[in-house]
Amino acid sequence: MENPSSNIEKLQQDCYNEWMSLQAKRMTELKEAISTGEKDDNKLLDLIRTAIRDFGDYARKRSEHSRRFSSNYFAPTWNTCLENALLWMGGCRPSSFIRLVYAMCGSQTEHRLTNFFNNTNHDIDSLSMALGETRGGIGGGESMSDLTAEQLFKINELHLKTVEAENKLTKVSASLQEDTADTPIAVAAFYKEVIGQADVVVERALDKHEEDMGGLLVEADKLRMTTLTKIVDILTAVQAADFLLAGKKLHLAMHEWGKSREHRRLEASGGDSGGNVTRE
Amino acid sequence: MENPSSNIEKLQQDCYNEWMSLQAKRMTELKEAISTGEKDDNKLLDLIRTAIRDFGDYARKRSEHSRRFSSNYFAPTWNTCLENALLWMGGCRPSSFIRLVYAMCGSQTEHRLTNFFNNTNHDIDSLSMALGETRGGIGGGESMSDLTAEQLFKINELHLKTVEAENKLTKVSASLQEDTADTPIAVAAFYKEVIGQADVVVERALDKHEEDMGGLLVEADKLRMTTLTKIVDILTAVQAADFLLAGKKLHLAMHEWGKSREHRRLEASGGDSGGNVTRE
Repeated sequence: MENPSSNIEKLQQDCYNEWMSLQAKRMTELKEAISTGEKDDNKLLDLIRTAIRDFGDYARKRSEHSRRFSSNYFAPTWNTCLENALLWMGGCRPSSFIRLVYAMCGSQTEHRLTNFFNNTNHDIDSLSMALGETRGGIGGGESMSDLTAEQLFKINELHLKTVEAENKLTKVSASLQEDTADTPIAVAAFYKEVIGQADVVVERALDKHEEDMGGLLVEADKLRMTTLTKIVDILTAVQAADFLLAGKKLHLAMHEWGKSREHRRLEASGGDSGGNVTRE
Repeated sequence: MENPSSNIEKLQQDCYNEWMSLQAKRMTELKEAISTGEKDDNKLLDLIRTAIRDFGDYARKRSEHSRRFSSNYFAPTWNTCLENALLWMGGCRPSSFIRLVYAMCGSQTEHRLTNFFNNTNHDIDSLSMALGETRGGIGGGESMSDLTAEQLFKINELHLKTVEAENKLTKVSASLQEDTADTPIAVAAFYKEVIGQADVVVERALDKHEEDMGGLLVEADKLRMTTLTKIVDILTAVQAADFLLAGKKLHLAMHEWGKSREHRRLEASGGDSGGNVTRE
């Protein structure tokens, strides 16, 4: 009889599914608050704090699960292969949060200017509006074009620190990966007569390896959390809400686009994937 | 009706299966040549050249397949999750080849000395034999303890260069991964009303992304090939045969150990994996 508590992969997948549903829920809440031009900073701040807390809760659950089985997080079976090719330590690169800030800033400025030029009323007031000068940081999904020079400077500083921290973790991961080509694993593989023959020392070394990789996942999640928190601290409430919304939309959309691409490949091959290309 | 030629994932998996079978075949050939104390360098050199050529052929096939679908190579469904957690750009880290050289050198020296101390005849001849001094580079699977200071110096130089080249590729990969959090993908995700709604610009950007990642895989395979060739050039024929044998045994064993660990987890959960934990 199945013992659900010991089915760690199922627990991990359920945890992921819950996380995706929660992201979709929070996306709707943020979208509503932004689209109604929510001027109540407290309401927005609540939503922002909730989004950060959600990520902390998710990271805590992953940390618990990865103590029992971490390898699965480095190429989860519940991800599309498009998403898995984008993974860095079981999630997105923290520096990609910053890239998203720049992307939103650029696109929203462009969006405003396009609206200005499409508008026949090219007076100073509408130019100021297009440049975001009169909106005081409260915009309807275009707040990121209001980023000040000081904010951009702080974001840039954070970018450099984040890349440095990412590189450190990447180095640790490289070293852990290389360890498996050393004593005792590689040596045991060499002296075994039968390939894959059970070996207590190898099993212990692989357990230790998975444990260390799990520890690395926790560190990477911490860096993701810190980066997210620091970005939100630099931004105004509306900008932070816009940024978090963009992040959630990107994550959810990539999963869907990844699935569509796999389904199209599956259809093109006549329906037989020859592998696990269909995902939930 | 299925059109096998368009089923790219099946082609990729078949290519992998052929590669694993070939590795097993070459392993047996190398083992036989080494265990019989093969003194005919030409025979060994033939086997070494074949092993290098095999890898080149495999890389060429992967390159062709990755032009049509590269994402799959970054976390293949045919790998165990243990192997996928160890992946660097669709394969092993080139620097792990060098780590393997050091591991084999250390373990084979230890092996010889243990044999010497277990032997009751502790005369100068058997000590020389234990230290590999009289074997002239022709050993029965213990040739790696014969590495000279000059060889170790060259291996160390190669290590530094390989790590540098790896870091360069890692940087390119980070940049490609971050690009997906920028225009046009992230911006399209933000402005779409429906999550995952089809978008020609996004599809083109994702095609370009997969193409660039495919190019990176080719570069990584080139680095693996160059590192392998350079190591073999530094080693004597017997050492190179020993090293290639150790590499093949490690690769094949990791696949089997990964499968055993997944099966044990599956059994512990009562047989229902809740995912794709069983692999061929």
